[in-house]
Amino acid sequence: MRFLFTICLLASFLFSFSQQKISGFFSGNAANQLAVEKEFDGYLNAKDQDTWLQFLSARPHHIGSAQGKLNAEYMANLFRQWGYDTEIATYNVLFPTPKFRQLELLGPNPYKAKLLETALKEDRTSSQLSEQLPTYNAYSADGDVTAELVFVNWGVPADYEVLEKMGISVKGKIVIAKYGGSWRGIKPKVAAEHGAIGCLIYSDPHEDGYFQGDVYPFGPFRPEQSVQRGSVMDMPVYPGDPTTPFVGSTADAKRLKREEITTIMKIPVLPISYEDALPLLKSLKGPVVPEAWRGSLPITYHAGPSENKVHLKLAFNWDFKPLYNVIATMKGSVFPDEWIIRGNHHDGWVNGASDPLSGMVAEMDEARAIGEMAKKGIRPKRTVVFCAWDGEEPSLLGSTEWVEDHAEELKKKAVLYLNSDGNSRGFIGFGGSHALEKYVNEVASEVKDPQTGVSVLERRYARTIANADVLGKSKLYGNRYMKIGALGAGSDYSPFFQHLGIPSGNVGFGGEGSGGEYHSIYDSYDHFIRFKDPGLQYGIALAKTAGRMMLRMANADVLPFDYSILTNTVNGYFAEIKSLIEQSRTQVEIENKLIADKVYELAADPKENLKHSAAKPSIPFIDFSTVENALAQVKKTTDLLSANLSKAEQLDAASLKKLNQLLYQAEQKLLDEKGLPRRPWYRHQIYAPGYYTGYGVKTLPGLREGIEESSWAETKERIDILSKVLLKFDGTLQEAISIFSK
Amino acid sequence: MRFLFTICLLASFLFSFSQQKISGFFSGNAANQLAVEKEFDGYLNAKDQDTWLQFLSARPHHIGSAQGKLNAEYMANLFRQWGYDTEIATYNVLFPTPKFRQLELLGPNPYKAKLLETALKEDRTSSQLSEQLPTYNAYSADGDVTAELVFVNWGVPADYEVLEKMGISVKGKIVIAKYGGSWRGIKPKVAAEHGAIGCLIYSDPHEDGYFQGDVYPFGPFRPEQSVQRGSVMDMPVYPGDPTTPFVGSTADAKRLKREEITTIMKIPVLPISYEDALPLLKSLKGPVVPEAWRGSLPITYHAGPSENKVHLKLAFNWDFKPLYNVIATMKGSVFPDEWIIRGNHHDGWVNGASDPLSGMVAEMDEARAIGEMAKKGIRPKRTVVFCAWDGEEPSLLGSTEWVEDHAEELKKKAVLYLNSDGNSRGFIGFGGSHALEKYVNEVASEVKDPQTGVSVLERRYARTIANADVLGKSKLYGNRYMKIGALGAGSDYSPFFQHLGIPSGNVGFGGEGSGGEYHSIYDSYDHFIRFKDPGLQYGIALAKTAGRMMLRMANADVLPFDYSILTNTVNGYFAEIKSLIEQSRTQVEIENKLIADKVYELAADPKENLKHSAAKPSIPFIDFSTVENALAQVKKTTDLLSANLSKAEQLDAASLKKLNQLLYQAEQKLLDEKGLPRRPWYRHQIYAPGYYTGYGVKTLPGLREGIEESSWAETKERIDILSKVLLKFDGTLQEAISIFSK
Repeated sequence: MRFLFTICLLASFLFSFSQQKISGFFSGNAANQLAVEKEFDGYLNAKDQDTWLQFLSARPHHIGSAQGKLNAEYMANLFRQWGYDTEIATYNVLFPTPKFRQLELLGPNPYKAKLLETALKEDRTSSQLSEQLPTYNAYSADGDVTAELVFVNWGVPADYEVLEKMGISVKGKIVIAKYGGSWRGIKPKVAAEHGAIGCLIYSDPHEDGYFQGDVYPFGPFRPEQSVQRGSVMDMPVYPGDPTTPFVGSTADAKRLKREEITTIMKIPVLPISYEDALPLLKSLKGPVVPEAWRGSLPITYHAGPSENKVHLKLAFNWDFKPLYNVIATMKGSVFPDEWIIRGNHHDGWVNGASDPLSGMVAEMDEARAIGEMAKKGIRPKRTVVFCAWDGEEPSLLGSTEWVEDHAEELKKKAVLYLNSDGNSRGFIGFGGSHALEKYVNEVASEVKDPQTGVSVLERRYARTIANADVLGKSKLYGNRYMKIGALGAGSDYSPFFQHLGIPSGNVGFGGEGSGGEYHSIYDSYDHFIRFKDPGLQYGIALAKTAGRMMLRMANADVLPFDYSILTNTVNGYFAEIKSLIEQSRTQVEIENKLIADKVYELAADPKENLKHSAAKPSIPFIDFSTVENALAQVKKTTDLLSANLSKAEQLDAASLKKLNQLLYQAEQKLLDEKGLPRRPWYRHQIYAPGYYTGYGVKTLPGLREGIEESSWAETKERIDILSKVLLKFDGTLQEAISIFSK
Repeated sequence: MRFLFTICLLASFLFSFSQQKISGFFSGNAANQLAVEKEFDGYLNAKDQDTWLQFLSARPHHIGSAQGKLNAEYMANLFRQWGYDTEIATYNVLFPTPKFRQLELLGPNPYKAKLLETALKEDRTSSQLSEQLPTYNAYSADGDVTAELVFVNWGVPADYEVLEKMGISVKGKIVIAKYGGSWRGIKPKVAAEHGAIGCLIYSDPHEDGYFQGDVYPFGPFRPEQSVQRGSVMDMPVYPGDPTTPFVGSTADAKRLKREEITTIMKIPVLPISYEDALPLLKSLKGPVVPEAWRGSLPITYHAGPSENKVHLKLAFNWDFKPLYNVIATMKGSVFPDEWIIRGNHHDGWVNGASDPLSGMVAEMDEARAIGEMAKKGIRPKRTVVFCAWDGEEPSLLGSTEWVEDHAEELKKKAVLYLNSDGNSRGFIGFGGSHALEKYVNEVASEVKDPQTGVSVLERRYARTIANADVLGKSKLYGNRYMKIGALGAGSDYSPFFQHLGIPSGNVGFGGEGSGGEYHSIYDSYDHFIRFKDPGLQYGIALAKTAGRMMLRMANADVLPFDYSILTNTVNGYFAEIKSLIEQSRTQVEIENKLIADKVYELAADPKENLKHSAAKPSIPFIDFSTVENALAQVKKTTDLLSANLSKAEQLDAASLKKLNQLLYQAEQKLLDEKGLPRRPWYRHQIYAPGYYTGYGVKTLPGLREGIEESSWAETKERIDILSKVLLKFDGTLQEAISIFSK
């Protein structure tokens, strides 16, 4: 009886699904895929996610820690139980840890910085002091410097222009910058470029403390003695083990000597709490800084220099540490040489419950569900690979070394790399290759938001439109379509995407789990479960979302890449850049007139003795026609391809296989083998982290940074290169079209 | 020899001036006027201004104080020495002063507010405690209330909408509001409308304290225990003695009883320092307030209510005090019955060096120069009246009572009222009747900025364009024309301008003398001379500017009112209002759609339990045609008038006199005798202080507030009234035109 009942249910169930169209599946196969996804959901279990989260976050688990190794083994065992071929891929990488840290304000009212986070009775793991990495910035230089202090706001290039106007130089000084406004590694890099000999980075309570909300343990935000750890390696040049750019850190890898490495910071850098920053900032003299620079400490913010000197002494153990990536593979039943790869890192700066484990446990749940279904015979057609990366925090070490080590195989086989890196209550977010946009929207329209019951796409639409201005609301009304973001740097997709050109995405939920635990001892299970995702409901939502993405890509008849969206997006970026250069030209013209008229001198308060800028060189007119022609060509081709793809059901198996291969490898054609200027490791010509923004993405990076930095010769060169890669990409898509005329 | 030399110099001097055209002077007379102005400048003396400033600010000189009376007599004596018919005009007015003030936080960690500013050795007059008015808000109610505290941001109506969404009511509570965002009197008024039983107003260091810059005595900004005194009388209803609306507070005036007065606050109100506010704000529970509400204290700002109650007890002496206006008159040599009136108040909250004396001493310097020139035979053609008002701070008491007392005479004779109210280093500012705009620009183009040597108009242009965005810069480039502001309330022009329709202006320099001394014991000579206008160079610049304005208006052949500019400005306001209503209509439509779609509910964090707004009534389409027709008519007339005025030199003396009278009385036609809704004292239909903004001006106030408050019946009524006054105004201008065809 029971059996028959199930059949009947399944039939009506299949019938209702068969109405639905999902990209990449022939009409007969969509209903089956939807049934598979429905079954997948049934295996997900928040309680198990919670158990795993508690285990993995029980002790500090940074790269090189005992718990880090234990966690890798724990996960490997589970993946094996779930039916995966699992290996722990190990690499030896340079990972400095503090040997000595000292920071003091000298003079008649000396202050010795605590550089220590406090154990709280409300947070059970916060007391594991002996296993915690001290508060530091990895890949700082060793150093012992004593100098006056200067406050540099975020410490980005524009801030130094303001300081110059105020007549303040950081040459020979120690700078203090606020966290925020750029990726942290930019701050000491730019400081060193301007002649500073040391760098402090502190969390101002305005961005990361009591201004945001109640501080831990009363609320989720950063308390006064808490410090944001983090890497300051110059990752916009290349990530991964700094001794082995471009190649895996295998036993036999040829390695750079420390003094040959360009990505280790040139000056000592130390992150500090706002409690430790307060006496230092109070000691600053000189002009009051612009309003936008001021934070929420109860002081008047001055630029400096300080009346008394600051002494900063740092020494590190420059050791090689083994890292443990867990790689769990389930061969595809039909296309074993096409890989759908899922990853999240497992190392944390300390206990790392939110970052990274909340994403990791969702990934584990996905792997478990697919594994259990495979045991019952519902096996993905393509190979699925679940990865747990080690050493992401210092510099994407685990993923980069593995990708560099397996580059040739990945170029051939990798269809998609899908990343997550933590998760919390809130709204879906997705960044990645724009060819994935339609597929992402389709998935997001089918996953229910746990708090409201509408789809996660609907909820995201609600927030976007609710936050828009009136004009935006009118424009967006009814348009339940999520534009996906472009990816900069900041997590393990970088080597896949920007180095190899593998179509990639980064997925997660957030926006309602804000707090100030980031990279501190308070990123704990206790904090997470109270403030970030109580009951791990969004852990389930992430698993449903990423799981669907994995399964659709794994089982698709035609891989759901829509290159017309990518093309439109690139056209948008290009229009943006053209408008940027035109605006800059107008701006330089009017500014130069005003400078010539001495308008700024007349407008300024003479008592402030500001230095006024000299006229800037005019911005030339640039010949963009080769890019414009290439884009027009690509547009024509992607339109034609879209038209042809609707006939894919008529292709034979071999043609279909060839078509799919061309589709997933097309994005690789957007690379230039020589990479970007100053950083050949970054090869993608559409997306890169900004040289001076770090995590922040720069789209069409060669062109955009050439223009932003007024390097006109470079800009011309980048126009040629961009045009060439666009035409190379076009060639691959044309090859795909030609399959239909055979 | 010496005599001849002077003649030669004067001749070449006159020659160079004769090239210049100034509005209002026939070709033969402009050069003479410019020579008079040049001579005027020679009498100005910063040292004397400094001496007067020191004397007048030597002790607290609020209304009713011994020093206030002494100051009036001191000034009257000087005016007499300079040749003026001088009287001290006295009125008895209701002026409450504190009898008892108590504020405490109850509960286990009680706090008793200090309510006291500290004497500083760096500030010589700060120790005159026995003569200082305690920190308080004049015209607060007496009261003894104990209740929970709620934080209401600025305390304006929009803030209560936000509180309502958070589910927080102020009914039966004491509110605490920040200074800023509106005139202070709006805060208790709106609080009482929402059921609050007490109101505290504090200076947050974000707007008025260490966030802005170094605090006194290290820098000019407000220290932690300093308090902003000020009136909370409901001045947007009517200013002046609350017992005698519409009439002067003379001995025989019929007076309202205290319980009949509507403009005294209904609840007790007390201003406090940020030191006293801190423990109160810390005691607040409830949700964290929106980011825009948060200040710069080192706390998380919560909405409340507070865990423990607050006790506020206030009692006042409700005494009548005599006020002493100094009125110094010099009869015009040709037109004694046409008055050019200059005023500044002389009372301060405490020592009041900046507010008001820095403007007062400039006015005195102007009067002295004109007086000395008159002694030499260079006497203004029209009567000039220099006024020093008492009791401005509590409620424009001196000016309002004098204006109400002399209303009929002023309507006939007053050509211009020119006000100032303090002065400091920086940029010229002017607000007032837009018929004055061209004349103001002409004067500003001839006064040199003391710091840069360019004209004050040029320097203001420099700042305006330097602060604009790129588009603004391109638009403004080369346009050295200053648009003058519209006047709301806040100083002694109100009775002249908004009650009687006398063309008025308010002039002063500022922008480089910022500080936090406002209405505190630190508004002292020591503070002023260090931070606001060292050497009183801008005291001289103000005297040159206002002096020229007085002299040009006093000597003009044709009074330099340009009503085409006023008309264009009113057309601009009207276009703004039409666009406001259209935008509101679009906004209500889209908001109602989003509310119906539950978008805000879906977008909100369910944990915040926000209350979501109900749909709003649609905004009807309004028939504006009568105003549009009236404006078109006025436009035609003002164009025709401008064309005719260029032929004024051909008129005979009687016609010219008649023309001038029509010109200066035309603005009075823009009044409606019944005044504005809810506040009949305010009669001007173009400019008024906002009912819910206070100092902030509302242009076309009847229409604008009708629309803002969705009172459609009222809006229609205001359309009729506005049209009628525009046509009445038009009639007067047509009468002026008809003079030319006689």
